[in-house]
Amino acid sequence: MKKLIAISQHEIEADFILRNALIADVFLLQWKKADLVVANGRIIAVDTEGKYKARHEEDANGRYCIPGLIDAHIHIESSMLTPEQFSRILLPHGVTTVISDPHEIANVSGTTGLSYMIDEARHALMDIYYMLPSSVPATSFEHAGATLKAADLAPFTKDKQVLGLAEVMDFAAVLNGDDDMLAKIQLGLDHHMIIDGHAAGLNSKQITGYRAANIHTDHECVSAEEAIERVTQGMYVLMREGSAAKNVRAILPAVTPQNARRFAFCTDDKHLDEIIDEGTINASIKMVIEEGLEPLQAIQIASLNAAECYRLHNLGALAAGFQADFVLLDDLEMMQIAAVWKRGEKVAENGHMLTPATTLTEVPASILQSVHLPEITAADFTLPLSQSLVNIIEVIPHQILTKKLTAHVDVVDGEFVPNIDKDFLKIAVFERHLNRGTKAIAIVHGLGLQAGAVATTISHDSHNAIVVGTNDADMATALNALQAMQGGLVVVKDGEVLAQMALPIGGIMTNVDASLATEQLHTVHEALHVLHPTLSFHLFLTLSFLALPVIPSLKLTDTGLFDVEAFEHIDIEVN
Amino acid sequence: MKKLIAISQHEIEADFILRNALIADVFLLQWKKADLVVANGRIIAVDTEGKYKARHEEDANGRYCIPGLIDAHIHIESSMLTPEQFSRILLPHGVTTVISDPHEIANVSGTTGLSYMIDEARHALMDIYYMLPSSVPATSFEHAGATLKAADLAPFTKDKQVLGLAEVMDFAAVLNGDDDMLAKIQLGLDHHMIIDGHAAGLNSKQITGYRAANIHTDHECVSAEEAIERVTQGMYVLMREGSAAKNVRAILPAVTPQNARRFAFCTDDKHLDEIIDEGTINASIKMVIEEGLEPLQAIQIASLNAAECYRLHNLGALAAGFQADFVLLDDLEMMQIAAVWKRGEKVAENGHMLTPATTLTEVPASILQSVHLPEITAADFTLPLSQSLVNIIEVIPHQILTKKLTAHVDVVDGEFVPNIDKDFLKIAVFERHLNRGTKAIAIVHGLGLQAGAVATTISHDSHNAIVVGTNDADMATALNALQAMQGGLVVVKDGEVLAQMALPIGGIMTNVDASLATEQLHTVHEALHVLHPTLSFHLFLTLSFLALPVIPSLKLTDTGLFDVEAFEHIDIEVN
Repeated sequence: MKKLIAISQHEIEADFILRNALIADVFLLQWKKADLVVANGRIIAVDTEGKYKARHEEDANGRYCIPGLIDAHIHIESSMLTPEQFSRILLPHGVTTVISDPHEIANVSGTTGLSYMIDEARHALMDIYYMLPSSVPATSFEHAGATLKAADLAPFTKDKQVLGLAEVMDFAAVLNGDDDMLAKIQLGLDHHMIIDGHAAGLNSKQITGYRAANIHTDHECVSAEEAIERVTQGMYVLMREGSAAKNVRAILPAVTPQNARRFAFCTDDKHLDEIIDEGTINASIKMVIEEGLEPLQAIQIASLNAAECYRLHNLGALAAGFQADFVLLDDLEMMQIAAVWKRGEKVAENGHMLTPATTLTEVPASILQSVHLPEITAADFTLPLSQSLVNIIEVIPHQILTKKLTAHVDVVDGEFVPNIDKDFLKIAVFERHLNRGTKAIAIVHGLGLQAGAVATTISHDSHNAIVVGTNDADMATALNALQAMQGGLVVVKDGEVLAQMALPIGGIMTNVDASLATEQLHTVHEALHVLHPTLSFHLFLTLSFLALPVIPSLKLTDTGLFDVEAFEHIDIEVN
Repeated sequence: MKKLIAISQHEIEADFILRNALIADVFLLQWKKADLVVANGRIIAVDTEGKYKARHEEDANGRYCIPGLIDAHIHIESSMLTPEQFSRILLPHGVTTVISDPHEIANVSGTTGLSYMIDEARHALMDIYYMLPSSVPATSFEHAGATLKAADLAPFTKDKQVLGLAEVMDFAAVLNGDDDMLAKIQLGLDHHMIIDGHAAGLNSKQITGYRAANIHTDHECVSAEEAIERVTQGMYVLMREGSAAKNVRAILPAVTPQNARRFAFCTDDKHLDEIIDEGTINASIKMVIEEGLEPLQAIQIASLNAAECYRLHNLGALAAGFQADFVLLDDLEMMQIAAVWKRGEKVAENGHMLTPATTLTEVPASILQSVHLPEITAADFTLPLSQSLVNIIEVIPHQILTKKLTAHVDVVDGEFVPNIDKDFLKIAVFERHLNRGTKAIAIVHGLGLQAGAVATTISHDSHNAIVVGTNDADMATALNALQAMQGGLVVVKDGEVLAQMALPIGGIMTNVDASLATEQLHTVHEALHVLHPTLSFHLFLTLSFLALPVIPSLKLTDTGLFDVEAFEHIDIEVN
């Protein structure tokens, strides 16, 4: 501190000065022509008098300089990258801090997975904060790789990277006063932490119940009305713009200069290729500026407001005393990013990281060996039926919702037979964590495969192995391929693997870098077109959500077909 | 929590409902016609559908209801009341939380004084939070009753009522990197606490130095320009309106809807009689509404903003999950207060507390026996002079600043002789804490006494005994009276005590209740008119600041005459 004070008083040189910038003042909502003076990773001064000296300088030539952006809610695993690799694709887009819920890896590897994510994040140049997963497994109607109780989470509250409890999804458990859920919330409160909400579709009364449990944020708003309801009840609204859920435009009319302090941005889930192409929070800023929001207001929402929401008191502003996370723009409205500094070090320029990746944290063996399927043969996919009228999962393209379809299917010798013309295919979920032997086979409509099988170990939230196919033999080959490469994505036809991408970290993340991962992903997506020449939706993503029993209507877990509205397993045969 | 959730879902009755109120939404800055539903001291709902039931109800008849007000910086001791009595005079004015710096008692009794204030505050219905005094004694040019180092403050950081380090007054120590000062600041930062500033007159560069030390607030702004400078540098501005310093009108033009979140209100020091008559923060709200500020904005500044500044995350708003501190108004613009609820209990109505005071905390004997003057006689006031040209303290009415006056005075037999016509009187400061025997005698102009002597043990910040008089005998009588009653205020004429008010708690606070204290104060003030028939300023207050060596220009401590600009003791005789 003594050194910083001496620098502030011009007694010692600073480390770095960005001269002649138009600096965003997110407190006054004004631009200020000034020099940004940095030392020890902190902002020493926003100086308008040109009075500081530093060892290194750079001239901004009058360009805009804004605080590093904050993503208030994201699941890093959805990028399929490790935290450090994830950091390397986001920093060039100006995102310098994320608050992440590692519930995907937690569903696979429990506390070992949490520890891995926290340890790995220490190698990242970006600040990665974590919320502790509140709902592992998501329901009791499936088998995940782990169950997390309050006692399991307790040791993590001591970690400086941990800010609270992640999205409390099970609103029924909260409103019913479920002891285990309240114990997790109380754990967070006892440690003066944030409790994140997940108030999808909740009405005013239900939000009131959430607030009785001190739930602080919601990232599931889909309209301005919902947003206003949450803000008036004292919550922060995290406006989401991800790959699947895009809510910013709908919420934006709610934002006014008077209430803007209660809004931040988040992405929740965003694909690797989209992150690389357009970034995350920077894209939301560009969008809301296009929609007419005052640019400084948009920047404040993406920086100071998110920092205040998560009580990160040294982040989110360009002023003396704050962490020196900042972004130089070539163009404000287009959010064209020239360079990014993290803790005062320039880390990215013109879309590229300036330093190579560090050596990754060693991944615990149990995480690298997380797929435990039995040897599978075509016979494992037999689906006996005593009648032809059945419940079918109907996929809605571009949505993670499904419909419950009732129809007659082909039954031969007491067994279901797929029908490619009618698009009635087999789908199966096999427990893959502990080789429990649980599996479920059902019928899906709308995926449109013409041949072969597609399988993955990414299947929210339990991440069992899920496979869809036109024939049992290819489905068996696909699952065996997943076992062989310890998880990933695979496309099979006529007994051959056409393409695959290994995700050996918990069966959900790659151990290669972002560019290689992008290539692999591209190859896998290309192979899908062999099976489905007219494919126009994200088939792997769609498949990944067909096992998620908290999103309506009909889903499949390793323990059977699940009716989400009834919140119970149902028979395939219509009773 | 389970019970609160059940109440929120209408399964159990609430404790109380204020029906049919116009409730201030400080998040949206809107009024909402609703019922305020309360249980367990918390707000359960702001309900617009009339769907809750409660054991007790009250009808607001459409009147305004606002959050309990927060005074962001106050010295309770300046009221001369104990924390609980102080609480009882402020609650009827709608002030439900204060952040207090107990540096007056700390200068007398050190950590014993701090502990007493904290313990006593637990009996108060108001929430009283404390900041740990950073500058005891204020300078090294005086003797206080205690010295507080970082190590002395450390145990108090564990206390839930302690929020941080109080006004860091010694800016020179900060900017020079003084080890002891930085250790105190670091102590606060290590405990994730707030560091309050005291940036009187500091320029941009000096503020930058403050920010390098993470100083978070300033309550010494006197202009809109100063306020903007502090906000842009990341500080909160606490707009002060006290008895002596009145800055709100001057700062107000700085406040806009865009930057208002960085402003709060405070009083710093306010007299007992003025608090009783007009309150504190409620009076500031009334003033800024008169000045044209949007009423909800004013209310937000006085509630949510102060709560956010001090990270009191459950205070400052009327929304589910917040503490049930609220105020019902008969009139908004006039801030006419009908009733006040604290933690859901109605505590005041029509200006009066509804419950009697609780039994006070037992005051430690060392605090009750804090005055240790020797037996004093007229001979102790001899002021030898070898020349008539001397430095004189010139009082400026209604200000705590003084001037350094150079003039010829009467010298007889090598001693100064007071001159009532020219208003050259003797003033003396006697160390009174440890009977160290230090004392200093000097000459004052502008107090205007025609006879007798006036003395008090309230003399900022060291609170030694200070006395002014027209003759040595009365001055001795006054100091002996202070010793006899263990501190207070005394007015003496012709060897007789005309009036006195005992302040036995540290020599600065009374042990009687507010109404009796007000009467006693009135009697003492009346007696002053016997000595000074044309008195038109607050003589005791003025006297109390003549020993404060951090406010320009010429002051007197127990170790001698002090030139504040030169920051050193000087001789009475002009060299």
